[in-house]
Amino acid sequence: MLKICVIGSSGHFRYALEGLDEECSVTGIAPGVPEEDLSKLEKAISEMNIKPKKYNNWWEMLEKEKPDILVINTVFSLNGKILLEALERKIHAFVEKPIATTFEDLEKIRSVYQKVRNEVFFTAMFGIRYRPHFLTAKKLVSEGAVGEIRLVNTQKSYKLGQRPDFYKKRETYGGTIPWVGIHAIDWIHWITEKKFLSVYATHSRLHNSGHGELETTALCHFTLEDEVFASLSIDYLRPHGAPTHDDDRMRIVGTKGIVEVINERVFLTDEKGHREVPLVEKGQIFEDFLREIRGQGKCMVTPEDSILTTEIALKARLSADTGQIVRI
Amino acid sequence: MLKICVIGSSGHFRYALEGLDEECSVTGIAPGVPEEDLSKLEKAISEMNIKPKKYNNWWEMLEKEKPDILVINTVFSLNGKILLEALERKIHAFVEKPIATTFEDLEKIRSVYQKVRNEVFFTAMFGIRYRPHFLTAKKLVSEGAVGEIRLVNTQKSYKLGQRPDFYKKRETYGGTIPWVGIHAIDWIHWITEKKFLSVYATHSRLHNSGHGELETTALCHFTLEDEVFASLSIDYLRPHGAPTHDDDRMRIVGTKGIVEVINERVFLTDEKGHREVPLVEKGQIFEDFLREIRGQGKCMVTPEDSILTTEIALKARLSADTGQIVRI
Repeated sequence: MLKICVIGSSGHFRYALEGLDEECSVTGIAPGVPEEDLSKLEKAISEMNIKPKKYNNWWEMLEKEKPDILVINTVFSLNGKILLEALERKIHAFVEKPIATTFEDLEKIRSVYQKVRNEVFFTAMFGIRYRPHFLTAKKLVSEGAVGEIRLVNTQKSYKLGQRPDFYKKRETYGGTIPWVGIHAIDWIHWITEKKFLSVYATHSRLHNSGHGELETTALCHFTLEDEVFASLSIDYLRPHGAPTHDDDRMRIVGTKGIVEVINERVFLTDEKGHREVPLVEKGQIFEDFLREIRGQGKCMVTPEDSILTTEIALKARLSADTGQIVRI
Repeated sequence: MLKICVIGSSGHFRYALEGLDEECSVTGIAPGVPEEDLSKLEKAISEMNIKPKKYNNWWEMLEKEKPDILVINTVFSLNGKILLEALERKIHAFVEKPIATTFEDLEKIRSVYQKVRNEVFFTAMFGIRYRPHFLTAKKLVSEGAVGEIRLVNTQKSYKLGQRPDFYKKRETYGGTIPWVGIHAIDWIHWITEKKFLSVYATHSRLHNSGHGELETTALCHFTLEDEVFASLSIDYLRPHGAPTHDDDRMRIVGTKGIVEVINERVFLTDEKGHREVPLVEKGQIFEDFLREIRGQGKCMVTPEDSILTTEIALKARLSADTGQIVRI
């Protein structure tokens, strides 16, 4: 039986809940900070008839529960600090992305992980990879459908709605490129398997509907090895009338074909024409994480992926903050 | 009766032929350089039963025919030099874009145009503006459908096929950003009506199927006034099996809605939902040009637009050549 504790209710804890099996037991939950609203998490576990102990202090929870796995999804700036604590305690961690909102925290994580990597595993919540359309695109590219990748265009577009107060401060939120854009950085890294060399980015807080320091729009331009270029457009301006919360897109242009993910569908254009591709089955990131913990397989999202994509996201944010091209 | 001469057969002369009326007479054609293949132009005018005199030397043609209008679409690097000659002779010009492939030629054009602007008119062949889907997008944005524009994503994707030899040298071709990308620069300028402040761009000649110095892919990142950002993805990798030659796209994200041009259709997403918008009627750029020449109206593409978009395209190319952010 794997003992699982959950810290926070501010991210994608549902990935963990949906991936639980009979050999998992959620024994404790706690907020990341005293004022964090845990109601979404409490409602979800109550509906699953799970009755963990509720702690007011996550540190005390770790001391008392001694979990095997820690699910970390609190105020974004704290996720990395708690991940560091988990790694130091040799607790496997399923942690919200970005895994750090500062270079300082990221370097500490990298350093500690180097020391404990044979004993402990962690993964960032890049659950979008496991959606059928992204798995299908990855499969097509891996099978050579586009030939050599030359250009990638990605998009993240979200409805803004009304976000918790901690989104309104860079110090607690981390920025829109690290919070929203990082998913597309992960797709580019995962699908191209190319090294990122540099980034130029811009972002703007204008028209953010009272969300303080939150950036409403951002644009990133990545240069990868082999003169492969990748664009990333990010916005919180998806209208409330839109049929879905998000409008995730990816277009992969290669020497033999173009694969496109749009409207949760996948299209391939090549010498045979343009057509929709049937989707493969969806995956589940927490199940994948459990497989790795149990020594039954490899999790598709690795600690190295989680560290690298966070680094790239923070460097993109740095570029946007400074107006400079940043080497990666 | 307006006397029209045509130089070259290497661009969009068809815009002019399609826009001719009874008050136009094509009296002469000539290559821009002796080796230029005029067969496409000759075939097209023959099918229209037009029988102009053919000259081997365009300079001689100008001397003898003294046209009212010059259609210029030869080897790209010459278009600006011939435009300059036209302006100096006070001949109205319908000229291929970019109107120059070097800053030096562009500055000469700007300078001469300043002196003759009350006597002569010219326009670059931005005919894509007049396609129903782009006119529809412009109309929607002008009517306030997206509110304040915050972000624009554009795409130019072409089949490469086998291009004439002059495409294989930067000196004669000018580059893929100025040749292909400039259209999207024009859309961004025309639809946002915002001042461009800077550009960061990259381009690559890899995998260009034996096309020498031609860039196969490019990515541009523009910063406009009011923290508006615009992306432009360019490629010649559209597979031969694709249903159309090009895959032009534009996505305009504003504070109240998103307008998207894709597959020659237009979609609007706003608080009322997501829907396709009926297209307005197409326009015709040469007819529009003739209206201005005849004092019957204003041409939608102005000399100022033609100069500015060429300048931005050349600065984007400079950015890609140098790896630096370039101020506009």
